[in-house]
Amino acid sequence: MLRFECDYGEGAAPAVLEFLQKTNFDQTPGYGEDEYCAKAAAQIKRLCDAPDADVHFFVGATQANLTVIAAALKPWQGVLCADSGHIHVHETGSIEATGHKCLALPGKNGKITARQIRKAVEEHRANASHEHEVQPGMVYISNPTEVGTLYNKEELTDISAACYELGLYLFVDGARMAYGLTSPANDLSLQDYAALCDVFYLGGTKCGALFGEAVVITNDDLKPDFRYCLKQHGGMLAKGRLLGEQFLALLDGEDGSGSSLYFTMAKKADKQALRIRAAFEAKGCKVLHDSPTNQQFFVLPDEWYEKLAETYAMTHMGKPDKHHTAVRVCTSWATKDEAVEQLIADVNGL
Amino acid sequence: MLRFECDYGEGAAPAVLEFLQKTNFDQTPGYGEDEYCAKAAAQIKRLCDAPDADVHFFVGATQANLTVIAAALKPWQGVLCADSGHIHVHETGSIEATGHKCLALPGKNGKITARQIRKAVEEHRANASHEHEVQPGMVYISNPTEVGTLYNKEELTDISAACYELGLYLFVDGARMAYGLTSPANDLSLQDYAALCDVFYLGGTKCGALFGEAVVITNDDLKPDFRYCLKQHGGMLAKGRLLGEQFLALLDGEDGSGSSLYFTMAKKADKQALRIRAAFEAKGCKVLHDSPTNQQFFVLPDEWYEKLAETYAMTHMGKPDKHHTAVRVCTSWATKDEAVEQLIADVNGL
Amino acid sequence: MLRFECDYGEGAAPAVLEFLQKTNFDQTPGYGEDEYCAKAAAQIKRLCDAPDADVHFFVGATQANLTVIAAALKPWQGVLCADSGHIHVHETGSIEATGHKCLALPGKNGKITARQIRKAVEEHRANASHEHEVQPGMVYISNPTEVGTLYNKEELTDISAACYELGLYLFVDGARMAYGLTSPANDLSLQDYAALCDVFYLGGTKCGALFGEAVVITNDDLKPDFRYCLKQHGGMLAKGRLLGEQFLALLDGEDGSGSSLYFTMAKKADKQALRIRAAFEAKGCKVLHDSPTNQQFFVLPDEWYEKLAETYAMTHMGKPDKHHTAVRVCTSWATKDEAVEQLIADVNGL
Amino acid sequence: MLRFECDYGEGAAPAVLEFLQKTNFDQTPGYGEDEYCAKAAAQIKRLCDAPDADVHFFVGATQANLTVIAAALKPWQGVLCADSGHIHVHETGSIEATGHKCLALPGKNGKITARQIRKAVEEHRANASHEHEVQPGMVYISNPTEVGTLYNKEELTDISAACYELGLYLFVDGARMAYGLTSPANDLSLQDYAALCDVFYLGGTKCGALFGEAVVITNDDLKPDFRYCLKQHGGMLAKGRLLGEQFLALLDGEDGSGSSLYFTMAKKADKQALRIRAAFEAKGCKVLHDSPTNQQFFVLPDEWYEKLAETYAMTHMGKPDKHHTAVRVCTSWATKDEAVEQLIADVNGL
Repeated sequence: MLRFECDYGEGAAPAVLEFLQKTNFDQTPGYGEDEYCAKAAAQIKRLCDAPDADVHFFVGATQANLTVIAAALKPWQGVLCADSGHIHVHETGSIEATGHKCLALPGKNGKITARQIRKAVEEHRANASHEHEVQPGMVYISNPTEVGTLYNKEELTDISAACYELGLYLFVDGARMAYGLTSPANDLSLQDYAALCDVFYLGGTKCGALFGEAVVITNDDLKPDFRYCLKQHGGMLAKGRLLGEQFLALLDGEDGSGSSLYFTMAKKADKQALRIRAAFEAKGCKVLHDSPTNQQFFVLPDEWYEKLAETYAMTHMGKPDKHHTAVRVCTSWATKDEAVEQLIADVNGL
Repeated sequence: MLRFECDYGEGAAPAVLEFLQKTNFDQTPGYGEDEYCAKAAAQIKRLCDAPDADVHFFVGATQANLTVIAAALKPWQGVLCADSGHIHVHETGSIEATGHKCLALPGKNGKITARQIRKAVEEHRANASHEHEVQPGMVYISNPTEVGTLYNKEELTDISAACYELGLYLFVDGARMAYGLTSPANDLSLQDYAALCDVFYLGGTKCGALFGEAVVITNDDLKPDFRYCLKQHGGMLAKGRLLGEQFLALLDGEDGSGSSLYFTMAKKADKQALRIRAAFEAKGCKVLHDSPTNQQFFVLPDEWYEKLAETYAMTHMGKPDKHHTAVRVCTSWATKDEAVEQLIADVNGL
Repeated sequence: MLRFECDYGEGAAPAVLEFLQKTNFDQTPGYGEDEYCAKAAAQIKRLCDAPDADVHFFVGATQANLTVIAAALKPWQGVLCADSGHIHVHETGSIEATGHKCLALPGKNGKITARQIRKAVEEHRANASHEHEVQPGMVYISNPTEVGTLYNKEELTDISAACYELGLYLFVDGARMAYGLTSPANDLSLQDYAALCDVFYLGGTKCGALFGEAVVITNDDLKPDFRYCLKQHGGMLAKGRLLGEQFLALLDGEDGSGSSLYFTMAKKADKQALRIRAAFEAKGCKVLHDSPTNQQFFVLPDEWYEKLAETYAMTHMGKPDKHHTAVRVCTSWATKDEAVEQLIADVNGL
Repeated sequence: MLRFECDYGEGAAPAVLEFLQKTNFDQTPGYGEDEYCAKAAAQIKRLCDAPDADVHFFVGATQANLTVIAAALKPWQGVLCADSGHIHVHETGSIEATGHKCLALPGKNGKITARQIRKAVEEHRANASHEHEVQPGMVYISNPTEVGTLYNKEELTDISAACYELGLYLFVDGARMAYGLTSPANDLSLQDYAALCDVFYLGGTKCGALFGEAVVITNDDLKPDFRYCLKQHGGMLAKGRLLGEQFLALLDGEDGSGSSLYFTMAKKADKQALRIRAAFEAKGCKVLHDSPTNQQFFVLPDEWYEKLAETYAMTHMGKPDKHHTAVRVCTSWATKDEAVEQLIADVNGL
């Protein structure tokens, strides 16, 4: 079985494991107060051109999302998000478990707009009984989104401006940040994220690390005492160095191209995904979302689906009609070219 | 600087890293639903002689504590614990953040008794206004305790009986389980824990893994839907296999003695700790707690403390009087014999 | 200004105040453990033909909603409700503040169906990654709904059957229970509610009391320790007797018709509302919802709205188009016939 | 049976009921946005000499405590209080249910000191692992305390100064404020409370109202959006006017002495309590706490207790030894002089 069902099916980029191996018997302080975390944070701040940012490392994305949101919001505030937002539909109510409501807006291809945000906030404020409603306090978006699509610079700038004017925090879930940054459709840089967001993260788990998300806080209001919140929610890893070490391996280590692994691996995965997409489209398959990143969503005739499913693990995304099946096909930093070639050949042969 | 300040200063037992390396490109389902987790769970159930238990893997102990307690208690219930209990004093209010109160009882050497538990519950129930108080719903103890001491089989049996009669869950935090099981003072087995507790865990983070705690649930009432709670609190690791793999490396891999690494490494660390203790005691230093495990607590004249602190990292535990300093000295699976020899020689030479 | 904007604009039915006056210097135990509460509970159980039910009195509906839901749900469960449900849109995230998500279903005229409930639960259970979603644990409906419409006996029976089969609790918010029970369109009795719901309440605040909601728990699983939860959320009134006394005044006191005040007052208000509706409809005004109870929703030409607004307070419900205004007009136990006559005359004269 | 067991056994001062009666058919906006609440708030601000304060009315004290504390604290903060503090031992974990830990300090006669507060905060801040502990964010004291004792002006000033210097909020629970203000031992005025506290309240429930607590916020940081929090926790009474009306009746209405009812009633109750105390002391009974207010705590030989208990309801406070019983005896605004005379006569006759 060749697995294309997700981007967290393998371990880590070999350079990551090598780094862990090499430093295994170093003795360091715990809880992220070691040199590796300090160096990784410094490197991330350089890449973001954000010398004053705070960087915190988390083991996973749900943990990062719930901790950031709980730390930022006042008790009566909620977080605006797309109705397909990961925090709203795929984290078992983790945000509500911290006391806050997800204020879902109808998304298009996983995205919401500055206009929707303004409307929601303005309607709330204009409502005579607004004290009986949850107050919007933050906007959460994912980029790439849960369905692989991308906000471009204009869209993110508009959302950022709306948040700034309205006094809301802007938080970008970057669990697949690398696949976004290296997509041919992308026009955003890490510096843009740092300039436009109050807090965002660079995902490691899906982008070459065993695990790990690097949260970057640029808004001074969100910085104080954040580590208390990290500890309170169980997110402070005893051997925090493991997180710093992995991000160093990904962001410091250059491959032949002169770029760091984090980017070169993601760029390759995006290319693989787009080749797969081209193959499906050439066969007349509809794409569910116009994704320029490593996640692709196709609608297949059932016979084709059943045939492919014999060899390839894909995520079943429901049946749009009686005779068709929707699937997600993911590539990742670990996807082998041979697997992609084989899949494409098999699609061509359908 | 030789570090004796904690038992999470290094990476992992080499066999753990080797296992991760060896399986790195295996493709597995995510979220702990892979073969490695299944095998590790099976091995733990064998060791516990608890075929019907559920085993869940967590990245860290705070996460495990808060998830187990939040899953088990009703909203109006609290958890009885020692006033030195980790959940009460060292986890930033993580239990309260899930809505539950820690009902602290005065501990002796980090331990509480069945008698104290009975008294607390009976007084609550006898109180005419008990509905105005938090209802005790669970007992939490750590074994070894936070100060290295051990509950013996009689004590744990008494506590278990009290909990059973009173209708409370018994939860044992086993972050340092290995160091307890292999202590010369220990008379408890994993089977005993499985028989006496409703839920407990075998710590990995401090006992040879990069990270990881294996929670064992024996009470059927606590089993259903536990994974929802795991996910909700951000404890469901995307690449859950990493946890299964590490516990397999620790619990399956035998060293020359025919025992698995988890136990042989801890046994050695306990011996090292007791040798260090003997050296300090021979010099007339008081121990703060009569610990038979890998954590030792000494009271030193300030000059001795300052001299040792030049070469050795120890945890500063306050000043019991003007001229003395209390310290914690830890060994671990990673502690080198040479470091122990050198420390003992330096203590002898004080 | 004649106020038709809500049904909580006045104090209480005179009989309620008289009862408070008459018993003012009685000395009773606190916290609802007095004779008046016992008698009121007994009367409610008689009316519901539910001798084994537990009855608890709350000051207000938000308090009742959040306490019942928090007491009933497991931490990873949420509550299914209409997207217009009071708990979802008009209680400042009170349910989320207790850690639970409102799982909103698209309502029609404020109502959801058994079919929608089944579909939501079945889809959740069929989803391979259901542990990443909030588990439905309860259904919350309001009857009358927030827009005055009514579930009939067949609909409530279907919803009850779905909940029973699926293992969900059914909770009916009866803040306006009296206006529902006495509506000409109603075919439900209090006995039906007791037979079909796990927990529901008879609203007092909007139905003749100064304040108060009587929660009736029929499901044995929800009974134990409920008062702890009541206290924890601040819902246990020190002088709980005030609640018992008010419900006694409303439910014991008969008017000339041989029925208790609670019902005779609501019946009159419903009639007034329907007369007002007929007047608006006779003028060609659209109703927003086909309400047979004390809340009516009309769409008026702006000139008509402005003219009426000089004399009558109505709730502004937005502008469906450029030239029309939507309003809510409420009657209540306190609405005077002369006020209704005057309004009708003014509508006729538009 | 003559009841001296608590100060919430009767209804309300007749003037309160008269006010409700008189205004019963007034039509007002809901949720505390009416003229009565506005007038009552203005009167309270006048009495406190705090024109810029915000005043919010709550139905009960547990509700007020949990809402104020949840609104003020950051998620990782806890509230310092006496180990006898009502929020810590008598509100079913209501503070923890909002996510915050009560950081209990050992009290003396129900009181804590500025010195204890400073020590707790300084130790926390000096602790290298303070991020693993709950951060103190507020000080909660009750005045009068739960055992009837009083903080004097010097003590409250010291605590206020400590809080100010340390950056903590000071919150005073004034459920029995009137009995404190009118005690012969008191040297604090409402103006002092307003000047020294960030937030405090004047209790109505135990001081002549049917129910109600008036929270006064003087610190600007705590003012914004407080009503959202009030609603979220179910504390926003639909007919909020009832609260304003009651406080107006208590604080505006003068009795013969030229002072308002709130004070004249409490003053009388304090006097009654001190006469009762003198009678018990004359018989050689020990007082448990040196209380100058309406709650008195005595230790009686069991025979005396049993004899008195035939006629008088007192709160049983445990048995200090085999032959003695501790009791609480309360007077209140409703206590009749004849009942006091009879009790004193019976004590004299023991």
